[in-house]
Amino acid sequence: MTVHPAHTRLELGDLKVPVTRVALTNGETFDRYCTEGPGSQPEQGLPPRRDEWIEERGDTEAYEGRRTELLDNGKAAVRRGAARQEWQGERRLPRKGENITQMHYARKGIITKEMAYVAVRESCDPELVREEVAAGRAIIPNNVNHPESEPMIIGKRFLVKINANIGNSAVTSSIAEEVDKLTHAITWGADTVMDLSTGDDIHTTREWILRNSPVPIGTVPIYQALEKVNGEADKLTWEVFRDTVIEQAEQGVDYMTIHAGVLLRYVPLTANRVTGIVSRGGSIMAGWCLAHHQENFLYTHYDELCEIFKQYDVAFSLGDGLRPGSTADANDEAQLSELRTLAELTTRAWEHDVQVMVEGPGHVPLNLVKENVDLQQEWCHGAPFYTLGPLATDIAPGYDHITSAIGAATIAMHGTAMLCYVTPKEHLGLPDKDDVKTGVITYKLAAHAADIAKGHPGARDHDDALSRARFEFRWRDQFALSLDPVTAEAFHDETLPAEGAKTAHFCSMCGPKFCSMKISQDVRDRFGGNDGASPEEVEAGMMEKSKEFAAAGGRVYLPLAD
Amino acid sequence: MTVHPAHTRLELGDLKVPVTRVALTNGETFDRYCTEGPGSQPEQGLPPRRDEWIEERGDTEAYEGRRTELLDNGKAAVRRGAARQEWQGERRLPRKGENITQMHYARKGIITKEMAYVAVRESCDPELVREEVAAGRAIIPNNVNHPESEPMIIGKRFLVKINANIGNSAVTSSIAEEVDKLTHAITWGADTVMDLSTGDDIHTTREWILRNSPVPIGTVPIYQALEKVNGEADKLTWEVFRDTVIEQAEQGVDYMTIHAGVLLRYVPLTANRVTGIVSRGGSIMAGWCLAHHQENFLYTHYDELCEIFKQYDVAFSLGDGLRPGSTADANDEAQLSELRTLAELTTRAWEHDVQVMVEGPGHVPLNLVKENVDLQQEWCHGAPFYTLGPLATDIAPGYDHITSAIGAATIAMHGTAMLCYVTPKEHLGLPDKDDVKTGVITYKLAAHAADIAKGHPGARDHDDALSRARFEFRWRDQFALSLDPVTAEAFHDETLPAEGAKTAHFCSMCGPKFCSMKISQDVRDRFGGNDGASPEEVEAGMMEKSKEFAAAGGRVYLPLAD
Repeated sequence: MTVHPAHTRLELGDLKVPVTRVALTNGETFDRYCTEGPGSQPEQGLPPRRDEWIEERGDTEAYEGRRTELLDNGKAAVRRGAARQEWQGERRLPRKGENITQMHYARKGIITKEMAYVAVRESCDPELVREEVAAGRAIIPNNVNHPESEPMIIGKRFLVKINANIGNSAVTSSIAEEVDKLTHAITWGADTVMDLSTGDDIHTTREWILRNSPVPIGTVPIYQALEKVNGEADKLTWEVFRDTVIEQAEQGVDYMTIHAGVLLRYVPLTANRVTGIVSRGGSIMAGWCLAHHQENFLYTHYDELCEIFKQYDVAFSLGDGLRPGSTADANDEAQLSELRTLAELTTRAWEHDVQVMVEGPGHVPLNLVKENVDLQQEWCHGAPFYTLGPLATDIAPGYDHITSAIGAATIAMHGTAMLCYVTPKEHLGLPDKDDVKTGVITYKLAAHAADIAKGHPGARDHDDALSRARFEFRWRDQFALSLDPVTAEAFHDETLPAEGAKTAHFCSMCGPKFCSMKISQDVRDRFGGNDGASPEEVEAGMMEKSKEFAAAGGRVYLPLAD
Repeated sequence: MTVHPAHTRLELGDLKVPVTRVALTNGETFDRYCTEGPGSQPEQGLPPRRDEWIEERGDTEAYEGRRTELLDNGKAAVRRGAARQEWQGERRLPRKGENITQMHYARKGIITKEMAYVAVRESCDPELVREEVAAGRAIIPNNVNHPESEPMIIGKRFLVKINANIGNSAVTSSIAEEVDKLTHAITWGADTVMDLSTGDDIHTTREWILRNSPVPIGTVPIYQALEKVNGEADKLTWEVFRDTVIEQAEQGVDYMTIHAGVLLRYVPLTANRVTGIVSRGGSIMAGWCLAHHQENFLYTHYDELCEIFKQYDVAFSLGDGLRPGSTADANDEAQLSELRTLAELTTRAWEHDVQVMVEGPGHVPLNLVKENVDLQQEWCHGAPFYTLGPLATDIAPGYDHITSAIGAATIAMHGTAMLCYVTPKEHLGLPDKDDVKTGVITYKLAAHAADIAKGHPGARDHDDALSRARFEFRWRDQFALSLDPVTAEAFHDETLPAEGAKTAHFCSMCGPKFCSMKISQDVRDRFGGNDGASPEEVEAGMMEKSKEFAAAGGRVYLPLAD
């Protein structure tokens, strides 16, 4: 799936770091961060590129692994006596080691291939990558059992990243559709993808997604665990959950959302909210706590989870199960109490060298957005913040990719490291592949707006390249450089379909007869080199120029295009 | 054009102030600010509601206005020997007075009907309206020759307003299409509309728009003046411009963008920009200044303009002709120099009691947005700021309604009074009526996000009403309360078309078997009244509840919907 004819995926250096090279009509090129991967036949999956790096380290071994059970794919599979659309590609034995996290290596002063790769992608010093990972301020999610992934980093010193959620539910979708959504997401720029499937075939859907994904894959294991106990939260046990985590770690899930901060004593704090508990995982754990009147088993077994995660290098995404579901509930005691617990859990994971990011809201009015990231950064000692939007208002269902992009750009500007996209279907339905594209493009522009606002080195180069193309009427370059060249060109064609208009020195806003850009080019022609010129010189220059201008017939409009 | 069956337009009190009343399925109602007007037959136009208020004041008189000339409709009309689609409705003689601006009355301590009307619309004290208008911190744009308009106020103490641009160009559109865009804009919530026509039939198109518009209409008179001199900026004269301003004032234009701040000495400051001058009006005046090497005639004749404006109560929208057209050019010397001049012009207009708002950018990185409004408010003594976006990045043509909504919500939160919308077609083409709708809805949500962030009294009521409906699975109410009920319901239907799903206690995200909202309702049922309960009480309560819960079978999921 190629976005635009002027785009080429190149792999640079020994590490084969991908870039999207955009060829411009003026002979220049512009290189963009590339997430789409080398491409794959869904039935075969991607080559396990990182295998040799993992081999090299020699600290993992392949083992027989957990036996897949029918129930891993839900009751339907049990009824059927078989899973649907079994994975047809290569099957590798799972690997694990004693402690093989990137944080573990970083703290030992080792710069791994993954870190070096990331440094090239981010155009920064590998040592900066190592330092940030060692300090817990950044994570490189890449389970050894997902060797197809191209390493990327999540941390506030680096480019703001975006995640796209996909996944089926009890009422929709097929495996093929989900793989299609994955392809769409990475083609348009998703840095990670979460498989939030809740229906049947969860195990197999995830297998297809992992084997075809060049980006890290995240999950919420409690969703599958719930399916294994017939959707009855009170029947959940640590054993079922633990088994599910191992199942997913062996498949190669790179990070897992764990709602270990939903403590029994916090549940009543949500009782008087406008929208109570809106996190699915949060409400599952709240339901369990209520049913048993016991502390959340994810909290009480947290160290055992760390022991598992460090053997595969699975990163924690500490879920905010009590995040606000409406602007009314933002930054309340329930949300902040959980955040304090997530801070404690961050420190505990770091004791095992396990990588951690912390999830955030949700729905937050703009005046309270900065407080969210400030508190998270302070309490969680700079662990990467990963937020869902937040939505700046509740009144626009159908447009929540926009209400949330406003909050997302703002919170990222203040230090959030990754943004979970919201699609136009939020609150209304599950995204189809067009919604996935809209959500990804919307979040790419929000993340980029934050990179610019943060003064991230080189971030504005892309804007400047596009703006120059716009100013010089290089329409094709303007299209090629835009986040969505297809839509940009299609919109232009709606008003000016003629081929000539692609090179015309005017746009449909002013029409062929007059164009403001043209006039400012006249200005530039006259005063182009005036840096450092004294007012008198400029004055004299202008007097001179105005004579020439009059002599030339004072043309301030353009020849009609053919 | 009715947006939703549950919406009714009501007119409250003697002043007949309109509200949109939303009837909810739980018997409650919610009243929303209403911009759509009473509706009209385009050929007949709207009733001149404000005529009697104007009569009452007895300080204006009707007179034999300026004779319409063929050239008012452009060269095509001259060739044809007639205008196209002449206005067929009632023709009233224009009126004027000595000084009849709302600011003039406010400064005399008079609370006009317009001020009282606005106070009802804004649910505030009429005296607040008078004070803000007298101080120049707010304007009520309503030319006496546009008696069809329903008064509204633009100022930072009031609800953030949005403007929708319509208008034809040399390459597109018809009068009927433009009237259709007007209807679309006000139906979806535009507070004012600007007619930026630049092609043929400018005079007649504007007549149709004014006679059918319940919202204030703004224009950029230099566009029509340029047409009158064959598109050759150097041929422009004060006399042609003055004649055009009177023509438009007599038709009833409520505010006019005047690029009087583009001074000769500022033009060279744009020479080294990435995108030079992108404002059409700005470049026209720059072209004129260069051609004649004389000071901008709008600046040198500014007091004469004030004399005209105060006779009709036309408000200034001081144009930012040197606004940045790319993030690279934001907050540069060219932009800020012009702003200082706009501040001077604001004070000069106030000496004539003429109402003023000041236009702002444009393209501005998020970290520089606040500075824009802070400087404008400080330098222009609190005169209302009216910004175009600003766009927070340049890289997403086709999605600039979103890149700009991010900047718009941010700048409005910091005190911008009105936001000029940007449609998905920005930089690529002219908006069609669907783009107008998308632009309006996007800006409504951005303006509302700012109202909430500012803590505007009652602003969050709308969010809370919708969130409660969402939490209680009142799907129909969630649709009816949303900014775009049509799209919200359509998106819901894509996943769950069945009629039953409109009342089902689940959504397609989790499916029928499990729903987080349901669980939090369980929580609320158990701990509903726990305000002020001591931890011990809550603890005891929870223990109790968990027994009941277990006894009840620990159901945390939902009956399948039929």
